Amino acid sequence: MLKLEHIGVAVKAFSESIPLFERILGTSCYKTEEVSSENVNTAFFQKGETKIELLESTDPNGVIARFIEKKGEGIHHIAFEVADIHAEMERLRQEGFTLLNETPKPGADNKLVCFVHPKETNGVLIELCQER
Amino acid sequence: MLKLEHIGVAVKAFSESIPLFERILGTSCYKTEEVSSENVNTAFFQKGETKIELLESTDPNGVIARFIEKKGEGIHHIAFEVADIHAEMERLRQEGFTLLNETPKPGADNKLVCFVHPKETNGVLIELCQER
Repeated sequence: MLKLEHIGVAVKAFSESIPLFERILGTSCYKTEEVSSENVNTAFFQKGETKIELLESTDPNGVIARFIEKKGEGIHHIAFEVADIHAEMERLRQEGFTLLNETPKPGADNKLVCFVHPKETNGVLIELCQER
Repeated sequence: MLKLEHIGVAVKAFSESIPLFERILGTSCYKTEEVSSENVNTAFFQKGETKIELLESTDPNGVIARFIEKKGEGIHHIAFEVADIHAEMERLRQEGFTLLNETPKPGADNKLVCFVHPKETNGVLIELCQER
């Protein structure tokens, strides 16, 4: 794992949360992107080498909508950039961790991604990501 | 706000969580420190320019113990490094945010810190921190 690439924050509505995070962070949202395979819209802010990624559900039964229903708005996951996602997935499997997808899948921001089960990581949902 | 300085993760016991995060992150814990004013022990890992800070309560009624009781283990806060904490606190007050401490207070890792109320930041507890 090279660095903390982004923090994913589940929000109800970009119309409120994009201006809100612009005021908090003192910087503008530089990109929005729909990830239709995950039923989410994403919005990005940069601070140093890390991004803040807001996540808005496009489906009332989507994973982000259900997260908000259960836990409220807030931090959903943290993502680490890796040099070789296949090698890092294999390293974590060897360490005994459960991966939520068996092969890397396409994510926002031109990435290949994989999630680690939060039950084994003290409740922290961790994403591995690699530039495609 | 200059960069994401650290992510704070509430955990029950360092005896389990320090070796766990060493396995996840593939790097060793480089420092532990008690912050008696906050009733917590802290343990640090570095990834790129950001730290992962584990937080273990030293008091069954402390803020981290109560957080875990309510929400379970997991991400507790994210902290941004600022160049001038007084100026950043004033900027956020002017933007209408509520600060949880009126003046900067001593935190772990030789920092002055201030927290922003998570009710106004989509449930994300945000810390400002400045090197002392």
